[in-house]
Amino acid sequence: MAPNKPSLALFTDLYELTMAQAYWQSGETAQATFSLYIRSYPPDRGYFVLGGIQDALDYLKDLRFSEEETRYLRSLDLFDPGFLEFLLGLRFTGTVRAMDEGAIFFANEPVIEVTAPIIEAQIAETYLLNQVNLQSVLATKAARVVHAARGRPVVDFAARRAHGADTANKFARVSYMAGFTGTSNVLAGKLYEIPVFGTMAHSFVEAFPREEQALRAYAESFPDSSTFLVDTYDTLKGVRKAVPLAVEMRRRGHPLRAVRIDSGDLLDLSTRARAILNDAGLQDVEVFASGGLDEFAVGELLRAGAPISGFGVGTKVGVSADAPWTDCVYKLVEYRGLPTLKLSTGKRSLPGPKQVFRYRDQSGDYLRDVIGLAIEPPPDRDGEPLLKDVMRGGRLTNQHPPLEELRERFARDFAHLPETHKALRSPATYDVRYSQGLTDLQATAEAEIRERELGQ
Amino acid sequence: MAPNKPSLALFTDLYELTMAQAYWQSGETAQATFSLYIRSYPPDRGYFVLGGIQDALDYLKDLRFSEEETRYLRSLDLFDPGFLEFLLGLRFTGTVRAMDEGAIFFANEPVIEVTAPIIEAQIAETYLLNQVNLQSVLATKAARVVHAARGRPVVDFAARRAHGADTANKFARVSYMAGFTGTSNVLAGKLYEIPVFGTMAHSFVEAFPREEQALRAYAESFPDSSTFLVDTYDTLKGVRKAVPLAVEMRRRGHPLRAVRIDSGDLLDLSTRARAILNDAGLQDVEVFASGGLDEFAVGELLRAGAPISGFGVGTKVGVSADAPWTDCVYKLVEYRGLPTLKLSTGKRSLPGPKQVFRYRDQSGDYLRDVIGLAIEPPPDRDGEPLLKDVMRGGRLTNQHPPLEELRERFARDFAHLPETHKALRSPATYDVRYSQGLTDLQATAEAEIRERELGQ
Repeated sequence: MAPNKPSLALFTDLYELTMAQAYWQSGETAQATFSLYIRSYPPDRGYFVLGGIQDALDYLKDLRFSEEETRYLRSLDLFDPGFLEFLLGLRFTGTVRAMDEGAIFFANEPVIEVTAPIIEAQIAETYLLNQVNLQSVLATKAARVVHAARGRPVVDFAARRAHGADTANKFARVSYMAGFTGTSNVLAGKLYEIPVFGTMAHSFVEAFPREEQALRAYAESFPDSSTFLVDTYDTLKGVRKAVPLAVEMRRRGHPLRAVRIDSGDLLDLSTRARAILNDAGLQDVEVFASGGLDEFAVGELLRAGAPISGFGVGTKVGVSADAPWTDCVYKLVEYRGLPTLKLSTGKRSLPGPKQVFRYRDQSGDYLRDVIGLAIEPPPDRDGEPLLKDVMRGGRLTNQHPPLEELRERFARDFAHLPETHKALRSPATYDVRYSQGLTDLQATAEAEIRERELGQ
Repeated sequence: MAPNKPSLALFTDLYELTMAQAYWQSGETAQATFSLYIRSYPPDRGYFVLGGIQDALDYLKDLRFSEEETRYLRSLDLFDPGFLEFLLGLRFTGTVRAMDEGAIFFANEPVIEVTAPIIEAQIAETYLLNQVNLQSVLATKAARVVHAARGRPVVDFAARRAHGADTANKFARVSYMAGFTGTSNVLAGKLYEIPVFGTMAHSFVEAFPREEQALRAYAESFPDSSTFLVDTYDTLKGVRKAVPLAVEMRRRGHPLRAVRIDSGDLLDLSTRARAILNDAGLQDVEVFASGGLDEFAVGELLRAGAPISGFGVGTKVGVSADAPWTDCVYKLVEYRGLPTLKLSTGKRSLPGPKQVFRYRDQSGDYLRDVIGLAIEPPPDRDGEPLLKDVMRGGRLTNQHPPLEELRERFARDFAHLPETHKALRSPATYDVRYSQGLTDLQATAEAEIRERELGQ
């Protein structure tokens, strides 16, 4: 654990702690299982990419309340001193099963199941939801952009508009996992060993007496890694000013990498810029595009044949503007060995600890998933169980895999998800079924609760 | 400065540092002024509430690169060792003018202007944009909810779905500034001394053998601050189970505060719940609503007459789901004492350091704003200048005001913004004009650049 890492013990909704005291005072402290899943697809989503698992597990591993934290809780005049003593000694001692970070998953599939004394499992709700929701939203958005770019490099430019600095760093990490080439965010590059990219902004061009002087000054500082921003005053005139410099740079053995266009009609301007460069014999200088791009814009540009070699994507991707949240939930599914569920309108939950089985065809392509009970054998033997033991007795069963491994694994797996589910608009719904065991338990548990609580 | 605060020096786009090196190597290190503003309104926005100023200023105050950070930069094989030595000694030494945290502002109005040697001012771009954009987006969203709730208390429930833990804390802070009653987020409560609220989740009800037992156990733990969640199995049956307990609690001198409904048709259910409570003589037990609420839903419920006393708002508000970003920019407006601007399509900037003047009628209500040049006197003498000196020579001119003061000031000021601009849908556009001096400078500077760069 990094010594400077701020404690997240108090990053929890107050009700987690008031419930904890009421559990503690009433002796309801038995083993519970909570299941974390997304209830439904946001618009235009046909799959999710799992992020946040490693942060969630590190949180559980390190969870503890300090004297200073319980002093604050005491100041609220809500808590029993005995309960605060209990909190000081609290550690997470439970078992966690989870899908792999970077796994592709679908609505209603548990991605984490936490089994522990109920207070330990309950308190973790807020942070686990926060991280898995956020990082899965961002990883999914990034995967869509990678898919839309059809193999062309995509660079994360979201640092300035992501919701906070820490979130920008996490976006850089999960977007790299999903296939981005790198990030403009230097801190994320350092933290996660991600390649960093970037050259110049409009202010740089404006600070020099003439546009050509700015480009020349930059090329002198970075002879081997220059991309010229050409749209400060007029894009095509900017390209024409870049041409003689690029010819000179090539002659010296330090070719210009690219020109970047950041505004205007990117299809038209990239086509004309490409022609100007080609006419000057600069076929190897690439056209790089940025400015308000997301997977929809990237997809349309490439469908229209824009000669763009790479993309920088920021704002709309870094906040997942069209779908910035999911209805990700963390639900009690078992307590004292008995199944639990709620019947709230539109928010019913499925009882019991579960397993998710994935079925593939002979080439490895996705066929369907089955959500079953954890205690059930797979409905037939080819089902691959996706939830694996990742913590036992409050300890990690394995070290976190390196980011490069997650990235390679994701690329391999994503290639097997059929295109119909990857459509950017109105994707086909993937086939997710419930096992007979789960269906039966659901019926029994619901009937029992209806009788007990509703007199039906 | 908190000793554990992680350094943000590397939280910058790589191009800020490559430009810095090129400025340094080419001797372009004169004074620059950058202006931070939002170019346009997202859908349904008629004003913005300013957040992030204090974090922006603290960043500038503390900006420095460590040996470890420059070692990472050296490993990139991009930077000159002399430049990295220069970075080690870099401090922000400039002047900053800014509007007050919590100020109400409009499109195109600079909210921060930074004047410093260009490298110092350039490097700060990424973090300043990140914080001012994020916190203004969130503060504006929160103000809209407060307005829609017409005086009823609103509590922040966004911790689990805001984009990251740190962002959830910042949302708690700016939403309290904008008039929320408090937050469910315990860490935010501790960090910012915000009142914290919360009682129970569905899991609590499910963990007990019967719903009544859960409610009773909770009331025994928290006799003076209980709100019963009633929709775990059936909302109205839940209310009926709460009634005898509430009657008993009142008899003992510890009345139930409220019932909370978190799902279903909130208008219908709150009306029926209210009737059940009233019929039992429990007029003082409030109905509190939550579950997918935002300013639009709160506004519709109250227009329809829902007898709801308070609201918990989370997901859609904490991510500002309908408008999660703005086109907030940080533009070079002056370098070496000369005005600068860019002409990029759809992204033109206005030259020169500026001032924003606000005009009010005799009762203090907003009339219009005028954006002028910093060196101009107000166009007429009643204009209140909104940009104030907040840093000189890299030091804060004043301590940050306490949050309670910001909150009171915001409430007073917001009352003077006419209702037409507060409409939740399609608000009226506020009158923002340019001074003659700014209009003239814009024309001159643009003509000069068109001639110089475009040969026009």
